[in-house]
Amino acid sequence: MSDPLRVAVVGLGYWGPNLLRNLVDLDDAEVVTMCDPREHRLDHWGRRYPAIERTPSYMDVLSDDRVDAVVIATPVSTHFQLAAQALRFGKHTFVEKPLAASSEEAEELVGLARRAGRVLMPGHTFLYSPPVVLVKEMIDRGDLGEIYFVSSSRVNLGLHQADVSVVWDLGPHDFAILRYWLGESPESVSALSRACVIPGTPDVAFVNMRYASGTIAQIELAWLAPSKLRRTAIVGSERMVVYDDTSGEPVRVFDSGATLPDPASFGEYQLSYRTGDIVSPRVEPVEPIYRQMEDFCRAVRERVEPRSSAQLGLEVVETIEAVDRSLQANGSPARCRRGSPADAGMPV
Amino acid sequence: MSDPLRVAVVGLGYWGPNLLRNLVDLDDAEVVTMCDPREHRLDHWGRRYPAIERTPSYMDVLSDDRVDAVVIATPVSTHFQLAAQALRFGKHTFVEKPLAASSEEAEELVGLARRAGRVLMPGHTFLYSPPVVLVKEMIDRGDLGEIYFVSSSRVNLGLHQADVSVVWDLGPHDFAILRYWLGESPESVSALSRACVIPGTPDVAFVNMRYASGTIAQIELAWLAPSKLRRTAIVGSERMVVYDDTSGEPVRVFDSGATLPDPASFGEYQLSYRTGDIVSPRVEPVEPIYRQMEDFCRAVRERVEPRSSAQLGLEVVETIEAVDRSLQANGSPARCRRGSPADAGMPV
Amino acid sequence: MSDPLRVAVVGLGYWGPNLLRNLVDLDDAEVVTMCDPREHRLDHWGRRYPAIERTPSYMDVLSDDRVDAVVIATPVSTHFQLAAQALRFGKHTFVEKPLAASSEEAEELVGLARRAGRVLMPGHTFLYSPPVVLVKEMIDRGDLGEIYFVSSSRVNLGLHQADVSVVWDLGPHDFAILRYWLGESPESVSALSRACVIPGTPDVAFVNMRYASGTIAQIELAWLAPSKLRRTAIVGSERMVVYDDTSGEPVRVFDSGATLPDPASFGEYQLSYRTGDIVSPRVEPVEPIYRQMEDFCRAVRERVEPRSSAQLGLEVVETIEAVDRSLQANGSPARCRRGSPADAGMPV
Amino acid sequence: MSDPLRVAVVGLGYWGPNLLRNLVDLDDAEVVTMCDPREHRLDHWGRRYPAIERTPSYMDVLSDDRVDAVVIATPVSTHFQLAAQALRFGKHTFVEKPLAASSEEAEELVGLARRAGRVLMPGHTFLYSPPVVLVKEMIDRGDLGEIYFVSSSRVNLGLHQADVSVVWDLGPHDFAILRYWLGESPESVSALSRACVIPGTPDVAFVNMRYASGTIAQIELAWLAPSKLRRTAIVGSERMVVYDDTSGEPVRVFDSGATLPDPASFGEYQLSYRTGDIVSPRVEPVEPIYRQMEDFCRAVRERVEPRSSAQLGLEVVETIEAVDRSLQANGSPARCRRGSPADAGMPV
Repeated sequence: MSDPLRVAVVGLGYWGPNLLRNLVDLDDAEVVTMCDPREHRLDHWGRRYPAIERTPSYMDVLSDDRVDAVVIATPVSTHFQLAAQALRFGKHTFVEKPLAASSEEAEELVGLARRAGRVLMPGHTFLYSPPVVLVKEMIDRGDLGEIYFVSSSRVNLGLHQADVSVVWDLGPHDFAILRYWLGESPESVSALSRACVIPGTPDVAFVNMRYASGTIAQIELAWLAPSKLRRTAIVGSERMVVYDDTSGEPVRVFDSGATLPDPASFGEYQLSYRTGDIVSPRVEPVEPIYRQMEDFCRAVRERVEPRSSAQLGLEVVETIEAVDRSLQANGSPARCRRGSPADAGMPV
Repeated sequence: MSDPLRVAVVGLGYWGPNLLRNLVDLDDAEVVTMCDPREHRLDHWGRRYPAIERTPSYMDVLSDDRVDAVVIATPVSTHFQLAAQALRFGKHTFVEKPLAASSEEAEELVGLARRAGRVLMPGHTFLYSPPVVLVKEMIDRGDLGEIYFVSSSRVNLGLHQADVSVVWDLGPHDFAILRYWLGESPESVSALSRACVIPGTPDVAFVNMRYASGTIAQIELAWLAPSKLRRTAIVGSERMVVYDDTSGEPVRVFDSGATLPDPASFGEYQLSYRTGDIVSPRVEPVEPIYRQMEDFCRAVRERVEPRSSAQLGLEVVETIEAVDRSLQANGSPARCRRGSPADAGMPV
Repeated sequence: MSDPLRVAVVGLGYWGPNLLRNLVDLDDAEVVTMCDPREHRLDHWGRRYPAIERTPSYMDVLSDDRVDAVVIATPVSTHFQLAAQALRFGKHTFVEKPLAASSEEAEELVGLARRAGRVLMPGHTFLYSPPVVLVKEMIDRGDLGEIYFVSSSRVNLGLHQADVSVVWDLGPHDFAILRYWLGESPESVSALSRACVIPGTPDVAFVNMRYASGTIAQIELAWLAPSKLRRTAIVGSERMVVYDDTSGEPVRVFDSGATLPDPASFGEYQLSYRTGDIVSPRVEPVEPIYRQMEDFCRAVRERVEPRSSAQLGLEVVETIEAVDRSLQANGSPARCRRGSPADAGMPV
Repeated sequence: MSDPLRVAVVGLGYWGPNLLRNLVDLDDAEVVTMCDPREHRLDHWGRRYPAIERTPSYMDVLSDDRVDAVVIATPVSTHFQLAAQALRFGKHTFVEKPLAASSEEAEELVGLARRAGRVLMPGHTFLYSPPVVLVKEMIDRGDLGEIYFVSSSRVNLGLHQADVSVVWDLGPHDFAILRYWLGESPESVSALSRACVIPGTPDVAFVNMRYASGTIAQIELAWLAPSKLRRTAIVGSERMVVYDDTSGEPVRVFDSGATLPDPASFGEYQLSYRTGDIVSPRVEPVEPIYRQMEDFCRAVRERVEPRSSAQLGLEVVETIEAVDRSLQANGSPARCRRGSPADAGMPV
């Protein structure tokens, strides 16, 4: 094996330490330094990992030649500036999701990465979750047939954030998962939301999405809900799957469907329904963050695109923006402008 | 007690016999005759209920002076004509849901009933289901506080009907329940659908609804789904309720919510969340159809509006039509024109 | 096909009408007469089935040469006398479970049937329940490997019967199912019970059972329980199965087990555990009573033993008696004396 | 507040580090030293907690005057010797469950603690689990009425231990919980077990228990089971409770029961059943181990008996031994000799 990737972790708030812990466990990576402007965070995590250097100065990190890559886990509003600087200093760059606070920013990052020949990877961790990967493999094998529709609920009595809507907070999970599964982003979205508790901050949103392939999707996002619910149903012509992150059986496959015996003569009640076994495939208990950071290291080393690619991250931001536009237009459908494939954010 | 209401049951297909059976059990009603143009249906149900007269001719029913009321369970396309004739003959009229095949027809029926001074009642049976009533009582008592949003799924691997979309087939259930609970119909709806199996017949639809009160709702309707799911979450400022028709505990009340301690000073993570007990209230095991026909008899006898009123039935049809208009407009929101309260379909 | 079996149904209480209804639906059988000493029961069911003759006299039934078989659904205390008379009159005889009120009675019936060359069949309906049959097929195919143990709970907030303990009321279900699955009756049982509500009538019982093959079983029987629970786990060396009568997925197969890699060297934590997919096989929705009466007809026609054989019915009564003996001996194990195979109750 | 209790943690295998972590978090305690004969364990945990001294020598711990108390988490076979020495050196002593490998050993420890005037506490952690405490409070308030019976399953596809049976491994949990809830140990037990995988090491056991109060209980313990199941039903005359450790709603209270309207005249089907609401009380999410170590500190400081008392620990060992005796006697009931209350293991 080659030398490990030398990494700096930037941002030691809620999520950064999770990335830090997994990078420490990874043979492929060596955490050289950690960076946070807040001294008490540096002190706290420095005691936990005494062998790792600490600095409150991001410029120290960027000017450190030992550092191959930066891993950024800071507030969304700072993503663009920190990532852009890192890329300009020639660092491979991992940024927490969403990739940036606007598609303009995201596109500029994608362009910077391409020109710099560096990996830019957003942290869509769910793409490394074993049940999500298992569903992807089933779709790619054709087990589900044509994907008719997807219905997803991601709700909980969770934390409100005064400055971010539930669409920006929870939406990236579903938008990224669907982009990964379906291999396409929606053509258009239509949305309805409400700010129930904090005026101006939507805490519930209903999003309808239409894809070029014909697939349609419905997504419910809510911070205020009677019980934790993360349930995604994917209904295909051959099989149907329910994915539930919170269940002991996170993937359940229903061998059932409806078939039209003779298109020429169908009438009322003439369909043939098929219902068969239900299978809960065994899912490997691996930590998604670990797999994600492993993929980042592999992308750098082998010069390949990570599964959670910059292009995917850009499209997720475009989808969020389209939702916002539909909300501003009282629910009228909004088109999701797509970055052209030529813009794909991979180093050559 | 006064004399029982003398009833004719018209239509002995899938649903009519259920109405017949409950009317036979009801002391308030006496089934005088049953009517269906198909002799084999008359024979079959005549053997079951030999004391009830039979006729293939609707005109026989209408011209029979002993008949106070007709109970119509025929295809939707015939509702208007059969109900209009019955009202013109001075019969109180119960019609299976939806009330009519268009809001024009429904409005005309409402006007006919008003002018004839007769009860016109659509068969929205769910309004008589004990869990639905229990939720209504909670809302009216203020247990839930302000209703923030509703999210509902009604899906199953069910029968396709070649001539009716899933919106016309399953939608009336949810639209009627929400109208009953909230006391209002949506101002506007936005919808997305797909005809997955039979070209031209939508078998999945996602509907977003916006109410004047501020409440928003999302409804998923599908014939093609991995497992039967009938789950409606009603999220209020004080409590949240999950209603699930198919569960042994059909109503679950979550004593939880989020409160804003001080509107002047809220910031990130400053909300106070409250989570408490979960209660599954005992629900009486009574048959909704029985209660529905009981309400029809009471409405006739006491000259009061039934819970499933003609006005409610009209608004349900208006909502369905608004969904269809939104679908034709590629998901743009469509207003639900409301019959003015002055049109309310009650006899005076 | 040969002529249908001409049957008399004796006893029109709670269960008899269910047998009657299924016999009427069966092409193989023709219900000639129904018999009950209570005139109001005869009247009630006579109106429902006007083509069937009625008599309050059992002797009328037995002396009617048209009657090939009697189907007895009367209180347990009368089973022996009614069945013995029927066999002496040369009638094939179906008796509700348990076969008789004591093993002496049951053995005498078995002997009578053998000497008369007539079918004697107890009504262990669960042996015709599709999930129970599916588990039997899995066991016979070797899918489960060696059966290590069985754990069963059959509890509910149900009706107490003042004259029968929960062991006589609910026990026959589990004892018959296990006898069918395992092909053996327990060698010995040990039991603990309590009469919580009505003095002298046990309403909860815990039964431990030991089989010659090495299999052990635990059965909980209770009328007083917080929620309906019918769950039987069958743990084998290759696979494990959970059978739950009340679930939408009544059979769930767990592809998991523990294997001992090398018997010579095992130590602490050296076992290899295997966990795999969980499968809920599709189960046909057929009515067990229908299948049961079909098997009775087939047994008569083809002179074969029915699945719910007289020998099985005798062994179930012996098991119940062994439980009672253990209870009288304060929980000391009691042997289940087995009728010898030579006594098997089949006509030759 | 007084000075913190100065503690030594002895044994850094699977469980000891959990105790260590909670003691470190506790203001009431100060971990002075950790002890394990295996240098690599000392090194590993020393790096994690550099401020805590380390020694491979238990004698170092005992002769250290700064150490007020030892917390022992070593194999069961060593409990007696290590705890006895600690008490002789005047140390307050916490020992992982079970208290000792035999009731003779346990009794001797109880006597030693009493004579030394030191706290002896076994680590029955479940007694500090919030749902278990909540059920105890309900029982003590009389919410459940008279406790009719308890039925418990504790099963999983878990680790086999070559030298300990499932009764010694899993039994202490249920035996301690029931002793805590009911305030009594069983008078007699009857058991059936099987060594399915490793010859001589029972991996499934069914235990029936009879209490002086009239309560009866059934416990299933198994390492080999199709799915994790921890379900305990407590059925009382007034209410029934289901406690399920692994559920998001760990305590569910059923307001239901059967009542005998008039004892003089009851007959078949004369009971009155009451079924009411089901409530899932909110349960505080606190760590049981933390509460347990807090109670140990409090017991030392305030000279009171901890909830998990030495007497309770002794009775648990006596119950296990009774189960073993019943198994050796082929399932015949075995009496649980009880240490007299005068032997209670508390310092005065």
